[in-house]
Amino acid sequence: MTMQAVIMRQGKLSIADAPIPTPGPGEVLVKTLACGICGSDLHCVTHGSQLLASAREVAGIELFDPNGPVILGHEICAEIVDYGVGARKDQKVGTRVVSAPFLLRPQPVTLGFGSLETPGGFAEYMLLSEDLLIPVPDGIPDDIATLAEPLAVALHAVNRGKLGSDEVPIVIGCGPIGLAIIAVLKMRGFGPIIAADFSPSRRAIAEKMGADIVVDPRETSPYDSWRSVAAAPDPARYGRQTPMFSGFPFRPSVVFECVGIPGIIQQILSGAPPCSKVVVAGLCMEKDSFYPTFAIMKEIDLTFCIAFTPQEFAEAFQHIVSGRLNVGGLITNHVGLGGVPDAFVRLADPERDVKVVVRPQSG
Amino acid sequence: MTMQAVIMRQGKLSIADAPIPTPGPGEVLVKTLACGICGSDLHCVTHGSQLLASAREVAGIELFDPNGPVILGHEICAEIVDYGVGARKDQKVGTRVVSAPFLLRPQPVTLGFGSLETPGGFAEYMLLSEDLLIPVPDGIPDDIATLAEPLAVALHAVNRGKLGSDEVPIVIGCGPIGLAIIAVLKMRGFGPIIAADFSPSRRAIAEKMGADIVVDPRETSPYDSWRSVAAAPDPARYGRQTPMFSGFPFRPSVVFECVGIPGIIQQILSGAPPCSKVVVAGLCMEKDSFYPTFAIMKEIDLTFCIAFTPQEFAEAFQHIVSGRLNVGGLITNHVGLGGVPDAFVRLADPERDVKVVVRPQSG
Repeated sequence: MTMQAVIMRQGKLSIADAPIPTPGPGEVLVKTLACGICGSDLHCVTHGSQLLASAREVAGIELFDPNGPVILGHEICAEIVDYGVGARKDQKVGTRVVSAPFLLRPQPVTLGFGSLETPGGFAEYMLLSEDLLIPVPDGIPDDIATLAEPLAVALHAVNRGKLGSDEVPIVIGCGPIGLAIIAVLKMRGFGPIIAADFSPSRRAIAEKMGADIVVDPRETSPYDSWRSVAAAPDPARYGRQTPMFSGFPFRPSVVFECVGIPGIIQQILSGAPPCSKVVVAGLCMEKDSFYPTFAIMKEIDLTFCIAFTPQEFAEAFQHIVSGRLNVGGLITNHVGLGGVPDAFVRLADPERDVKVVVRPQSG
Repeated sequence: MTMQAVIMRQGKLSIADAPIPTPGPGEVLVKTLACGICGSDLHCVTHGSQLLASAREVAGIELFDPNGPVILGHEICAEIVDYGVGARKDQKVGTRVVSAPFLLRPQPVTLGFGSLETPGGFAEYMLLSEDLLIPVPDGIPDDIATLAEPLAVALHAVNRGKLGSDEVPIVIGCGPIGLAIIAVLKMRGFGPIIAADFSPSRRAIAEKMGADIVVDPRETSPYDSWRSVAAAPDPARYGRQTPMFSGFPFRPSVVFECVGIPGIIQQILSGAPPCSKVVVAGLCMEKDSFYPTFAIMKEIDLTFCIAFTPQEFAEAFQHIVSGRLNVGGLITNHVGLGGVPDAFVRLADPERDVKVVVRPQSG
């Protein structure tokens, strides 16, 4: 039995037949209804060897086979088709589900970077672990359900920032993750939220997602915006100061780095207020450089993060279902499997798309 | 009225006469009894222009005049000689005191980087602010009292690390600050303390200061040492894990970077366990480079720090006076003013000295 899939080989995508995978113990075969295209999918195509080398060096894992075949896609909404052996079958066949993109095997599998045996979501069928399935209520469209994954990434980044209620968030870069972070910050009541992006379309979406002050960094420094809104009503409450910056009557800032290119960290260290927390949510694959003295004299905290826990995934999905998370502006386009290679090209241009959702059943 | 002083001009030190300074309102003229030589004094001589450029760019301040004359020295024990106008005179003339190295003027002065009007401690006399004076009890020698300053730096670094009681500290580099951090960690009951340095003499002092496991990193990785002692009795308590490193049954690590040269941060990112906190206490004056993916996949927190608050200074001194802080091994030599230029040369060799204390009254 075969299915249609988008297959990556040596950084090239093509539409081809692949075997329909077989669910193992505790696993479920699902029909992929929708799967978002993520920045890390683009990274696999454009920086595949660097991503592989990093995962190997840092974590000792082989993330995927560089010579392929690999089926990408890990922002999934699917429908249960069949159960593997020993499954509890809590959900009926036909139930729509989302899942954190992992297979809970003795050697865990990160879905969306696997070979044909454990395909990602850019294919008509895939496998999920029964224990991670979360049913999708009626009324939540397939494409909206896939947003649980990027919103979980954003929720995790905001959690890592450990924001105090008086801290002022500054979001640098309004790609999908920057925008999702704005949505989470808004839901949690933090603000005013300052956001910066070069792209007019992305700035417009940032406003729609709930950013209070949105700037083009070529014209206005987001740190000047922070200064204009963060004057502290009670300076004595804001005790933290460095010897280099005494008497500092401003609410603290938490900067979210959502760009992920070399140089952006130094740019933030240079612009950010003293005592800032910087949450690095961007995924820079290349060597980067910076001047430690900027971080030292300002006593900055750099917090790096990736992905999320299964609990954070479940929480993000709940907030989407309840409508507390405003995710309306994120999805800008839909394609069938045949449209995936072109969508990868289009996504490189911030004016054209933010989040493209693939509908594998529509060819 | 003139005094003897070590004067820096364009990165060169020489012994010369300087005017005895005049205390302003709320200030006190003191006879400098002892003053430690700090790594940042060495930086002023060897990397003066970089230090100046950083302070100017980051904090908008002129730390010192690059063409001099500058009188260095900010780890001070002194004796009150005379008061300026409007002083409360709480302490008698002749009282021995320590002070955080600041003059509380409308435009605050960082002592030890100033011109002849506000000399540092490598001179027979200097000025201090009355409000920062802390009397030195009998029985605490002058040289030991000067250690309040580097110990306050260490206390601040440990405070910035926000260690939980089960976290295992790893100290990379056993110069004066690394050793002082070991003393503070020991006093606070954290451990086992792992320390690493290339120098046999410094490793011997690290043990004396309270490090439990001391390694030569050419032979033993401090992170292997961590692994051997940090196995968690109750893995379920150690919940933090990254998607790249699931199931991670070790007590968390807090790495103190006390080397301050380019490359050391990447070396730590590469070796440190997942979810480590890294406290950067080293003062790297040059451009540095790193691979963000290491920090990202391990979800590392990089916390940069400098100096201390006046409260931390007072606390460090109290712990020295009470004997809770074991500082015995830090001071390796004493010189008069005439011996300062040679001591600067000797301090570049870790086998020869850790902390040299200058006695300005002994010529």
